[in-house]
Amino acid sequence: MAVLCRPAVWVPENAISMEETLHLARRLHAGHEKLSLVLRLIRHTGVAKRHLIQPLTATLTHPGFEARNRVYVREAKARIPDVVTQALLSAGLTVRDIEAIVCVSCTGFTMPPLTSWMINALGFRADTRQIPMAQMGCAAGGAAINRAHDFCRAYPKANVLIVALEFCSLVYQPDDIDVGSLLSNGLFGDAIAAAVMRGSGGEGMHLVGNASHLVPDTLEWIAYDVKDTGFHFRLDKRVPDTMNVLAPALHALATAHGWDAGRLDFYLIHAGGPRILDDLCHYLKVPPAAFRHSRATLTEYGNIASTVVFDALRRQFDEQLPDGARGLLAGFGPGITAESCLGTWSVARPPRVGGQAQRTCDRFADAPTAPSP
Amino acid sequence: MAVLCRPAVWVPENAISMEETLHLARRLHAGHEKLSLVLRLIRHTGVAKRHLIQPLTATLTHPGFEARNRVYVREAKARIPDVVTQALLSAGLTVRDIEAIVCVSCTGFTMPPLTSWMINALGFRADTRQIPMAQMGCAAGGAAINRAHDFCRAYPKANVLIVALEFCSLVYQPDDIDVGSLLSNGLFGDAIAAAVMRGSGGEGMHLVGNASHLVPDTLEWIAYDVKDTGFHFRLDKRVPDTMNVLAPALHALATAHGWDAGRLDFYLIHAGGPRILDDLCHYLKVPPAAFRHSRATLTEYGNIASTVVFDALRRQFDEQLPDGARGLLAGFGPGITAESCLGTWSVARPPRVGGQAQRTCDRFADAPTAPSP
Repeated sequence: MAVLCRPAVWVPENAISMEETLHLARRLHAGHEKLSLVLRLIRHTGVAKRHLIQPLTATLTHPGFEARNRVYVREAKARIPDVVTQALLSAGLTVRDIEAIVCVSCTGFTMPPLTSWMINALGFRADTRQIPMAQMGCAAGGAAINRAHDFCRAYPKANVLIVALEFCSLVYQPDDIDVGSLLSNGLFGDAIAAAVMRGSGGEGMHLVGNASHLVPDTLEWIAYDVKDTGFHFRLDKRVPDTMNVLAPALHALATAHGWDAGRLDFYLIHAGGPRILDDLCHYLKVPPAAFRHSRATLTEYGNIASTVVFDALRRQFDEQLPDGARGLLAGFGPGITAESCLGTWSVARPPRVGGQAQRTCDRFADAPTAPSP
Repeated sequence: MAVLCRPAVWVPENAISMEETLHLARRLHAGHEKLSLVLRLIRHTGVAKRHLIQPLTATLTHPGFEARNRVYVREAKARIPDVVTQALLSAGLTVRDIEAIVCVSCTGFTMPPLTSWMINALGFRADTRQIPMAQMGCAAGGAAINRAHDFCRAYPKANVLIVALEFCSLVYQPDDIDVGSLLSNGLFGDAIAAAVMRGSGGEGMHLVGNASHLVPDTLEWIAYDVKDTGFHFRLDKRVPDTMNVLAPALHALATAHGWDAGRLDFYLIHAGGPRILDDLCHYLKVPPAAFRHSRATLTEYGNIASTVVFDALRRQFDEQLPDGARGLLAGFGPGITAESCLGTWSVARPPRVGGQAQRTCDRFADAPTAPSP
């Protein structure tokens, strides 16, 4: 019995509002022939604010791939410990109880992976399994949950820590001025999420099945161009149209378990953009409010890539759900890949530090912390 | 019952001999104050020849990270299909029989991962699970096998394709002239390996248990510096000393299964270098010949990173092993991490195209193929 416990989500202290983003776009791209389209697209995202790992001036500067990646590593190491500690606390576990760490992050690169660093720095056991994935983009949140679920299926008593870290602002490329890039510059935000999947006990989403689906021949629709200046994010305008293909895959997963994807009690969907959420609502025949957690994430934090589904789940924890309530979680990203899973809400055995952990975690996610000394 | 079937291994057509390597080192680093040490270290590797994905002149040129990565992607796409086809044939399976693809490769970067490309290009099912790992370096061969094993434990009838692709020569950095870099320039080779882990049936190594072990506080000993010029491989001179720490971890894995790591029937060990093999022989108290397959890989191909363990396993297939023979497979790499597993030899159910596949595969691995048109 694999239960995905309450996630901890952290966003950086540097916030940028929609108005500031629009103002910036107007200033930086005054002569751009498609500026009005870009402004309309950004306004349409509904992203009220986002959080950036560096102050705005530093974010807009490109000091080179090496310097950027150094910021990535420095900030990852400074911020991960608190988020992981919070996730462990919420799950009622310690570092010694963890058998595997899944770490997903596509906005920087390290070898050894951050999992190795975490084992050393946070005191996880030397025999902790490491499952780092850097190439799944926004789908990596769902992929991380699905691989953790598989691990718990393989070792039924095992507990898995999941860490998703995305500093999307470190992939900002000043020279990319196509519409997809300029829209992305106004859409993505930075965040770190961590959550524990408990092999037994725990409160949260009890995973009952997972699936992956690749949309044929869409490899270039969401992709990195790897250049001397680092990763250049490419976003094709056909991406929002993919829900008509992915909705049937979600239906198929539900049907395989005797469920109806259109009649579930909760939905935790990747908030890639408003159109993705609207279209999926349409194809699943559910009301807009069904995706309220994802919409709240999008509004408050922007598209925070692989961390979205964890933030949506965090918000779900703040609502009362009855034991056994049925839900769907789905991440979408490059490939184009959907990584989705089904689960029932489990309130049977709240973690031993339950109440207190819950309140602490809310505060943690809602109020960006001051930088570590 | 997860059985790792006969791997297919491909090496590029461009070979460079030990003598050519030494000559090159003398020419390029004539005035280097530690040249004689470097030459001695390279000679001591025992690498008679290696294979490079590009001709030597192109290998020695650094056209930038972007151009390098373009070569990586182009050659990966050109070479993977034959290797995968061969591995499937050896396992008696088709693309439709595969539930998951684990792809490990640290010498280039793509997003979406190569798993997505393979699903499209080779006709795998759209619901194939993708497990790409780019950050485990030389340990990734063992890690890929272990994650495939976990997947088969989770879904007992599932078949998993593993692909390991390392074009180490694309990480050559002309300006890195420390002893570790110059030794690496004479040690590493390029190769692609693929193997299927069958959930039922099949001939090969039947996995019975796996483990991961991280050596504390050795993060920087094997690592990439990420720079504008791409990945810079760092190799610390203390690395060969790690076997005294890792041997106990291998002993512990064996003991946990009631086995004695020093008294097994076959060994498939990462050929990081001669000292690693010699030391591990010493600590496990086994004769040098116990590691003959790894030594052959090192001599003929060099350290081919995550593909070593598959090449050693391929060689093991060429020897007759009785059903139930016990063995140990271990990959070592950044972290410093050991990814090891135990298995018994299974001859119970040879794949349906067994004999023919076996002969084809031998030829395939021993004679580098001509480049695709």
